[in-house]
Amino acid sequence: MLDESELPRQWYNIQADMINKPLPLLNPATREPLKAEDLAHIFAAECAKQELDQEHAWIDIPEEVLERYKYYRSTPLVRAYALEKALGTPAHIYFKNESVNPLGSHKINSALPQCYYCKQEGTTNVTTETGAGQWGAALSYAAKAFGLECAVYQVKISMQQKPYRSSIMRTFGATVTGSPSMSTRAGKDIITRDPLHPGSLGTAISEAVELATTTPNCKYTLGSVMSHVSLHQTIIGLEAEKQMEKAGEYPDTIIACFGGGSNFGGLAFPFMRHTLLEGKKIDFIAAEPSSCPKLTHGKFEYDFGDEAGYTPLLPMYTLGHEFKPANIHAGGLRYHGAGTIVSQLLKDGYMRAVDIPQTESFAAGLLFARTESIIPAPESCHAIAATIREAKKCIETGEEKVILFNLSGHGLIDMTAYDSYLNGDLTDPEFKG
Amino acid sequence: MLDESELPRQWYNIQADMINKPLPLLNPATREPLKAEDLAHIFAAECAKQELDQEHAWIDIPEEVLERYKYYRSTPLVRAYALEKALGTPAHIYFKNESVNPLGSHKINSALPQCYYCKQEGTTNVTTETGAGQWGAALSYAAKAFGLECAVYQVKISMQQKPYRSSIMRTFGATVTGSPSMSTRAGKDIITRDPLHPGSLGTAISEAVELATTTPNCKYTLGSVMSHVSLHQTIIGLEAEKQMEKAGEYPDTIIACFGGGSNFGGLAFPFMRHTLLEGKKIDFIAAEPSSCPKLTHGKFEYDFGDEAGYTPLLPMYTLGHEFKPANIHAGGLRYHGAGTIVSQLLKDGYMRAVDIPQTESFAAGLLFARTESIIPAPESCHAIAATIREAKKCIETGEEKVILFNLSGHGLIDMTAYDSYLNGDLTDPEFKG
Repeated sequence: MLDESELPRQWYNIQADMINKPLPLLNPATREPLKAEDLAHIFAAECAKQELDQEHAWIDIPEEVLERYKYYRSTPLVRAYALEKALGTPAHIYFKNESVNPLGSHKINSALPQCYYCKQEGTTNVTTETGAGQWGAALSYAAKAFGLECAVYQVKISMQQKPYRSSIMRTFGATVTGSPSMSTRAGKDIITRDPLHPGSLGTAISEAVELATTTPNCKYTLGSVMSHVSLHQTIIGLEAEKQMEKAGEYPDTIIACFGGGSNFGGLAFPFMRHTLLEGKKIDFIAAEPSSCPKLTHGKFEYDFGDEAGYTPLLPMYTLGHEFKPANIHAGGLRYHGAGTIVSQLLKDGYMRAVDIPQTESFAAGLLFARTESIIPAPESCHAIAATIREAKKCIETGEEKVILFNLSGHGLIDMTAYDSYLNGDLTDPEFKG
Repeated sequence: MLDESELPRQWYNIQADMINKPLPLLNPATREPLKAEDLAHIFAAECAKQELDQEHAWIDIPEEVLERYKYYRSTPLVRAYALEKALGTPAHIYFKNESVNPLGSHKINSALPQCYYCKQEGTTNVTTETGAGQWGAALSYAAKAFGLECAVYQVKISMQQKPYRSSIMRTFGATVTGSPSMSTRAGKDIITRDPLHPGSLGTAISEAVELATTTPNCKYTLGSVMSHVSLHQTIIGLEAEKQMEKAGEYPDTIIACFGGGSNFGGLAFPFMRHTLLEGKKIDFIAAEPSSCPKLTHGKFEYDFGDEAGYTPLLPMYTLGHEFKPANIHAGGLRYHGAGTIVSQLLKDGYMRAVDIPQTESFAAGLLFARTESIIPAPESCHAIAATIREAKKCIETGEEKVILFNLSGHGLIDMTAYDSYLNGDLTDPEFKG
């Protein structure tokens, strides 16, 4: 743990240090690069500015956000001795525990600044999409903290799988609607095409963006994918860097699960800075689900961020914006595309990706729970599974590698998934590309 | 927060300082006072010894338990500024946040030493009862931590209301059975008498005690009521005392919810020491549910701790061991009796009790969630409701009272209860004495 005086006071903007910058976002009609003003129609102006900032490597965290961070930060950096022992690996396994806050995941790190900027700019209402509900819960709390009204579109299948998360959002005063819904034009169109559509982050984004653009004084917020979200999440890696230093070690391998890229970038970017600036060698691994493998099986191309095609065109690894992901329990990883920064970094060889079958992820999560006492979120189980793969390689090679992974959230609201695994009902849906 | 070096290394045994000691436990057949040897048939020998210890005020915490405490302790002491502001009270409200650990409640504080002592004494299996499941989850984890097998009897109605908690226990490797069940003589008898019996802590204790006494190398453990459990929980109050000193304040009022007394005693006893030894005036308030009000509506008499009459006779405030509590969501407070220490202290006027209707408890919990960002367990909501009552009195009198309450656990696994409250479906079951 860090002392209050050691908490980072700036976020790290990796765009400033990248050799090949991410390609610009394009206006789908004109295919012209977007300016911050264009994005400010849907996002808070400050977020729009951060999104396109390729100059400033360090961005000040506002005092009001720092105050809120202090409620739960720093988060612990933990050496997973019991897991190491159970595996019999010579590797040193560390994890950054982002599950230690009242909302239970890293998502709050970006929900707070996004709501703060909205409030500062005179916005009264925020809206968003959510999958498993980690982001929706975080935003509901942050909106309440800064006195904003909040409306959340939650992926329908996730809402059914994890009913408690919508209850949490309602407890914090948010309105929650299952997506696709009949409350928007986009939702109606999707339901008309496919009445049994289980929903996806793509459908929920379409609905939230539509609500934001058709409601006065309402802004859209996003829990991942966008560069400003990863920026806010760098608080994770910046803390972890200081904590690893205190532990007297430096990671050889850095692993995080991958949905849109915010928890991955949040942990990895501050370390990758040393790769970019000093040539430091670190093995960065993004762990994605086998059934939604945009990094390992997607194409790098311009695509929409949502199902209906309301967003700008984003240069990214994508499975196509109409890709319908299988109903895996890791709702937060059921997204067709990757953020523009990560996409460029993967293309340029600074990182790699692995895909993890659902049952392997839960086997890893169960072992972690029984050794380290924390029940991990189904998303985080993918990072644990990838970590176990690497730690097992160290048994063969005898290397004492230092592996750092991000425990992005706990799974207390995801117990039906564990039930299903313990009962032997869980399957590994195939990827249909 | 406290530094690691400031963590208490001893528990406080209030029995040593009490003027009127608790009356002895009696053998139901002979009505003779029990000795530690008699209790050691069902409990770990060290726990049995602690149970009857009326001499030593300070008892060393074993190193192995301290090491495990350090995984999550100290827990934060928080000033509830936002709640104060929402109430408009001049009172200073503090809470000790025992929800900050992977199991989500204070129960782990006693689960760890109980399993440690069992392991030390060569026990291989532990068993217990659980209501809402907070205790069962904590014991499942502690058993796994010390390499013991664990079997839990969970109150049937709570198991239905909170299915995730049994999943958590199973995830930690425990066997979970709904009580009353057909797996024990006691359970069969209860079901024969009342096939639709929803279960109670009393029925689950009978079944667990029977399992422990009929299984080789198996000990029974308990999550509340007994004096050694409160002893282990004093880590809460001992930390809080140091933390209040750092905050430069001293509590006028100390509040905790009340099931069997362990979280109440855990917070209150270290402060009550100064009442007993130095005559310090503090208003100690136990908050119990209106539908299970043993302290405000029970009788002080010898009674069994369980439904079937397997336990020793305990001198306590009780509603009768066959009392069938209403199906309120605060499963941990659905117990017919109070621990022997608290019963004596209440009788002697050192503390008082209030009873809280279910809907008042959830209204308080919702306000707390929306101001302080933590969704409290239904049990803890009772402490919050009692705190709000006291804080509102301060508005009238203008007193800047310092109120300290125990947030014994979070309510993330109890979201069906909040749903029910938000939907307007929650009722206030009457007490039928």
